[in-house]
Amino acid sequence: MARIKILTAGESHGKKITGIIEGLPSGLSLNKEKINYQLQRRQKGFGRGGRMQIEKDEVEILSGVRFGKTLGSPITIQISNRDWDNWKKSMAVWGQYKTKPVTVPRPGHADLAGSVKYGTSDIRNILERASARETAMRVAMGAIIREFLNVFGITIVSHITSIHDIVVPLTFQKLSEQPSRDIIKQLSQLAKKAESSSLNCSDPKAEKQMTHKIKMIQEKGDSLGGSFEIAGLGVPIGLGNHISAPSKLDSIIAADMMSIPGIKSVEIGLGAESSTRLGSEMHDPITPGKNGLFERTSNRAGGIEGGISNGEPIIVRAVMKPIPTLIRPLPSVDMVTGKAVKAHKERTDTCSVPSASVVGEAMLAISLGKAFCEKYGGDSIPEIKRHFHGHPVS
Amino acid sequence: MARIKILTAGESHGKKITGIIEGLPSGLSLNKEKINYQLQRRQKGFGRGGRMQIEKDEVEILSGVRFGKTLGSPITIQISNRDWDNWKKSMAVWGQYKTKPVTVPRPGHADLAGSVKYGTSDIRNILERASARETAMRVAMGAIIREFLNVFGITIVSHITSIHDIVVPLTFQKLSEQPSRDIIKQLSQLAKKAESSSLNCSDPKAEKQMTHKIKMIQEKGDSLGGSFEIAGLGVPIGLGNHISAPSKLDSIIAADMMSIPGIKSVEIGLGAESSTRLGSEMHDPITPGKNGLFERTSNRAGGIEGGISNGEPIIVRAVMKPIPTLIRPLPSVDMVTGKAVKAHKERTDTCSVPSASVVGEAMLAISLGKAFCEKYGGDSIPEIKRHFHGHPVS
Amino acid sequence: MARIKILTAGESHGKKITGIIEGLPSGLSLNKEKINYQLQRRQKGFGRGGRMQIEKDEVEILSGVRFGKTLGSPITIQISNRDWDNWKKSMAVWGQYKTKPVTVPRPGHADLAGSVKYGTSDIRNILERASARETAMRVAMGAIIREFLNVFGITIVSHITSIHDIVVPLTFQKLSEQPSRDIIKQLSQLAKKAESSSLNCSDPKAEKQMTHKIKMIQEKGDSLGGSFEIAGLGVPIGLGNHISAPSKLDSIIAADMMSIPGIKSVEIGLGAESSTRLGSEMHDPITPGKNGLFERTSNRAGGIEGGISNGEPIIVRAVMKPIPTLIRPLPSVDMVTGKAVKAHKERTDTCSVPSASVVGEAMLAISLGKAFCEKYGGDSIPEIKRHFHGHPVS
Amino acid sequence: MARIKILTAGESHGKKITGIIEGLPSGLSLNKEKINYQLQRRQKGFGRGGRMQIEKDEVEILSGVRFGKTLGSPITIQISNRDWDNWKKSMAVWGQYKTKPVTVPRPGHADLAGSVKYGTSDIRNILERASARETAMRVAMGAIIREFLNVFGITIVSHITSIHDIVVPLTFQKLSEQPSRDIIKQLSQLAKKAESSSLNCSDPKAEKQMTHKIKMIQEKGDSLGGSFEIAGLGVPIGLGNHISAPSKLDSIIAADMMSIPGIKSVEIGLGAESSTRLGSEMHDPITPGKNGLFERTSNRAGGIEGGISNGEPIIVRAVMKPIPTLIRPLPSVDMVTGKAVKAHKERTDTCSVPSASVVGEAMLAISLGKAFCEKYGGDSIPEIKRHFHGHPVS
Repeated sequence: MARIKILTAGESHGKKITGIIEGLPSGLSLNKEKINYQLQRRQKGFGRGGRMQIEKDEVEILSGVRFGKTLGSPITIQISNRDWDNWKKSMAVWGQYKTKPVTVPRPGHADLAGSVKYGTSDIRNILERASARETAMRVAMGAIIREFLNVFGITIVSHITSIHDIVVPLTFQKLSEQPSRDIIKQLSQLAKKAESSSLNCSDPKAEKQMTHKIKMIQEKGDSLGGSFEIAGLGVPIGLGNHISAPSKLDSIIAADMMSIPGIKSVEIGLGAESSTRLGSEMHDPITPGKNGLFERTSNRAGGIEGGISNGEPIIVRAVMKPIPTLIRPLPSVDMVTGKAVKAHKERTDTCSVPSASVVGEAMLAISLGKAFCEKYGGDSIPEIKRHFHGHPVS
Repeated sequence: MARIKILTAGESHGKKITGIIEGLPSGLSLNKEKINYQLQRRQKGFGRGGRMQIEKDEVEILSGVRFGKTLGSPITIQISNRDWDNWKKSMAVWGQYKTKPVTVPRPGHADLAGSVKYGTSDIRNILERASARETAMRVAMGAIIREFLNVFGITIVSHITSIHDIVVPLTFQKLSEQPSRDIIKQLSQLAKKAESSSLNCSDPKAEKQMTHKIKMIQEKGDSLGGSFEIAGLGVPIGLGNHISAPSKLDSIIAADMMSIPGIKSVEIGLGAESSTRLGSEMHDPITPGKNGLFERTSNRAGGIEGGISNGEPIIVRAVMKPIPTLIRPLPSVDMVTGKAVKAHKERTDTCSVPSASVVGEAMLAISLGKAFCEKYGGDSIPEIKRHFHGHPVS
Repeated sequence: MARIKILTAGESHGKKITGIIEGLPSGLSLNKEKINYQLQRRQKGFGRGGRMQIEKDEVEILSGVRFGKTLGSPITIQISNRDWDNWKKSMAVWGQYKTKPVTVPRPGHADLAGSVKYGTSDIRNILERASARETAMRVAMGAIIREFLNVFGITIVSHITSIHDIVVPLTFQKLSEQPSRDIIKQLSQLAKKAESSSLNCSDPKAEKQMTHKIKMIQEKGDSLGGSFEIAGLGVPIGLGNHISAPSKLDSIIAADMMSIPGIKSVEIGLGAESSTRLGSEMHDPITPGKNGLFERTSNRAGGIEGGISNGEPIIVRAVMKPIPTLIRPLPSVDMVTGKAVKAHKERTDTCSVPSASVVGEAMLAISLGKAFCEKYGGDSIPEIKRHFHGHPVS
Repeated sequence: MARIKILTAGESHGKKITGIIEGLPSGLSLNKEKINYQLQRRQKGFGRGGRMQIEKDEVEILSGVRFGKTLGSPITIQISNRDWDNWKKSMAVWGQYKTKPVTVPRPGHADLAGSVKYGTSDIRNILERASARETAMRVAMGAIIREFLNVFGITIVSHITSIHDIVVPLTFQKLSEQPSRDIIKQLSQLAKKAESSSLNCSDPKAEKQMTHKIKMIQEKGDSLGGSFEIAGLGVPIGLGNHISAPSKLDSIIAADMMSIPGIKSVEIGLGAESSTRLGSEMHDPITPGKNGLFERTSNRAGGIEGGISNGEPIIVRAVMKPIPTLIRPLPSVDMVTGKAVKAHKERTDTCSVPSASVVGEAMLAISLGKAFCEKYGGDSIPEIKRHFHGHPVS
């Protein structure tokens, strides 16, 4: 009976990827261009391989929306594979198996563990679903849930904070050291700069260095990781709860963020750095605000205390490992012959941290959407507006 | 219909805390002392306040076990509050409200957000459940699930890796840079050293410094955070899966680990460091092993690729913020008067990283237990032994 | 993330049975006597064996409630086994197995299938949990959830409609043939009569016959089944939804009702009889009501159309098979020797339809509670009161 | 983490209906014709309106299957609306609202309660999803899950047992009164006769009367209900369990069956009739079988005892109310004007009991599939074959 239910489906080179969201209220206005805009943000970014040229993802909505408004019924979203003609033989749904199997697993990918788990001798049966292509659907779903959250003043922004050893100087974490009064504005501005850049990077100088680095590493046939931050702005007090482990908002966010391919670390607020602060340097003092409400002199907690949103911006940081598919592949073993060989090559990017940051925005939208519906209930936008009591603290 | 279901209940100073686990198979031998041993590990650690003296937690099993073996029915676990006599007035279940309310929220705790969310003017109604005391029950449950995993050769170990700025030199992450052949042994040895220390610290020199630091900070009325690592050893290939976000093993682990009070960062394998490696320096090459199986020359992935366990040790790192209750409290606001005052004081520790590492072990047991039952099914230990096909790769 | 989560635990002759409810809001006033009253209703009824003398169930609340009000945290409920002293050897949690095993399964019980499934040669390992004793906990939980529903004007009533071939003349189904204006009053009155009777039977003449029949069959060492009806009164429009199979209110109710031991049939509204009506004789015409609202000229649908509550009373009917434990047992086979023998005897009632009807009330409370929380959200009683918009139709 | 997850989506007259099944193992051979065959069974049946001519449903698989075998990844299923061209204006996903709203709710349908719940003044926003058209997707999914169950010797059959007052003489319930040895054969034969008839009716004489009745009632502009039985054959001992209410197999089946549009009663085994039997006439005696196993002299329990499958055929009976859309509509109220008018007409059948029986087969497949995966685990067909230990009792 959980309110928002999501399933996604589809192989990377299959005909279409499909998603269904159940549980959104009726009466939500959607706009196709806004969804496509998010899909395009996921696709851009220097360092992305040929695929993004082919993709130019566009969403098709097949249910749950009528005349641009949600009905309250499940929404079907589909994204076609524009390269399907080149794949329809090797990815055919029906007919005799008639293709060259992939037999050499790529280190860092689901290839080996997946093939053993599912008992297949053609690794393509695994890699097609393990591919980050699936995240296009999450971005589309996230775009829809964002529209829902926006109705209640909640927005989600991001920027990348590093690629390899090139680190962006100003971060959401750093901005969180100051009184929260103007922080939404500052976080938004930083993210806005990033959104207009080619790498979702807010610092032009760093971006230039990153572009150079990506180019260099691309030539070497190697790959790069990095990190990014996501912020949820305007989140009301009281999403998630402290009463049980799985309902804590940070636990929900950690699960959603860690599920993005390649993510190896998830932080909330100051994150890893919080271990080196004393208690008196870490926790965010509470001061009297206007109208009997409260203010904070910092937001190191990242907007969540005791598993509950506290009215401050939600700050999440994630770290992504370098892409596991390499142009100059790593040592591996042919699963059929047992011989040591180089890993299988598959069309690949050099660096997909900017993409991942867009996926991260979508995942935060999903996390917050789930928690929001749990708190406010309601079946239509007007009803939820009546239920919603906003931001009663700061 | 998910197989393993868990609920915990109980206020920190209530009469008892209670937990129910549903879904464990029949025929599992349990031992009360082993569960109590884990509870005691959670309680010890220099820097823990007076409570651990009082507690001396002991488990009582009330259902699901008969003559020392599980029945397959839900297991009820209870831990009594040995200090109940001192609390039975202010935490009475029945009767008229007759106690002094807590009205000043502590920064860093659920106090403020929880009181607003649940609409209470006595913060005790929130802080009693938000307290880390609840983790005693998770440790007890984890101890039971560990017995289950042990039947199949899976063990879980931990050690702390830092307190404030004092960092342990040898970590699970570092050990994972080498070929995996002997790594289980090395990880176990490191953890064994830690287990016999007072801070769950494997390095005596660091431990001494930590003890000194804790003492110093305690005197200042401040608090300390730190970090720890957990490893799952003997985990078979194939737990978790790549086919959907919520079923990825790393996503499950991230949620469970982030739900521990005070945790602000969760890493798998090399974690945050993986962003500064090139692909060729990060991914774990695959080499031919014995009997047509495979080996790895490193385990930087931390035993999970594409959301699936790959047969290598599962390596998790978590970072804990300093305890939010301070002897010299931070600025806050009285929720009733609206006046700026110092935050409420509650009996507290100075540093609970060692405790949290024991809770981390329990949470990893829970994560792996869920994924294990999903893969192998089965209703009794003998049946699951027939289903289990172990570790078919390395 | 489903809002209301419930687990129960405990063996029939174990020390205690335990339940945890998570997800109820804060600020709900509870009353121990009201919970105990429901427990006592479950226990009474002519035809119940010796156990009900021993039981005199009383609830102990161990968490989630303070000074008589819910905190929003999980509520622990416990009921002690007053006969524990006589069972503590054969149901010991720890120690060596030292008791006489039950080896002959009773037809109609979980004995055979359970023993095979869980791989035990002592059927007591199964029958202790399969016993209807577990329903005492559901009644206690239902009593709590009823208090919650009562705040919003929702009440739940029941009566038995038959025991064996003795059938009560006036039923909720029959009352539903008329215009709904006065029906709540009539249903309540019928149920009130039943509540004050010894068999939860609204018709004194039928009750007398039933008592006689039970006595007769008891003497023969045989057992009796019957049927009962439950009604949910004051249920607002809009609980449950039509958008997916598992979220339909009738589907939720059917699952909860069928889970009561011995239930073999669940009906909504006219139920089985609806197949013999023409469409024009079955569906409930809609007529203009006061203030622009609507009325119905009948309630044959039983308050649910398209999986959604429609503002009319929810009418549920359930049929219970005779109790499977017989004083003059049926043929069976000793699982150890393989020989044909008479089934095992266990202390038993002759007829437990009145008990089951009280459990049925609790299960309907649970069904409606889940759907109510999903629709209205909210974390405290005052907040939910703001969200609640009642009964906007008839 | 529940293993099998299902979502369906799509409006009755939308472009396509879509479903995703997650959690089926890899290596399952599928056959498009078998799925289409089930879709066609759902569509046929005298008394179905014009729609079935238009529909001729055919499935398209878009993911999760490659060269006719499942991959273990989520399976996307789509069924196109062949009448889309006539609806694409009034059911457009995008663009301005430009169509005639439906404002008069039909008694017996989700129309009124749905419109109030979701706050719409165009009832089409509700009725499109509440339509039984959605069950086509459930049939397609059921067809896939049946292929899975078939691998392990489990088959599902059905027949209708009544339409209005015309009752089929020989039923699954009656066959269950005899020793179970030959019952699978007899149940299969009865169902086979039904499958080759136009109404899924096993008795030619009854079928003739039914056809006549349908014709007559169709002319009157009224509608008819009826009843049907489903049986699960070859179901191993041990699906579902007794340890908690929601995991009982009969509870799962009741929920799935009650979710079929129009179903008002669900019975297991003898069902409602069991209340009129004495215990000694109801419960199925156990006798010694071959090889130390057991036999039953009857199957009145319908294959489930204590919530667990007992190795006998699963027998389910469901009763369907007459279709709520009438050619000669019932009194209703215009939701806009508040005036009493006749209910809205929508293209409709006169009787859809035969269709519902095919949906019932699919729902039983889904119920059993969920319980089967929970018991046996496993990620590929060969692995599950190793886990499966069949039918160890009779």
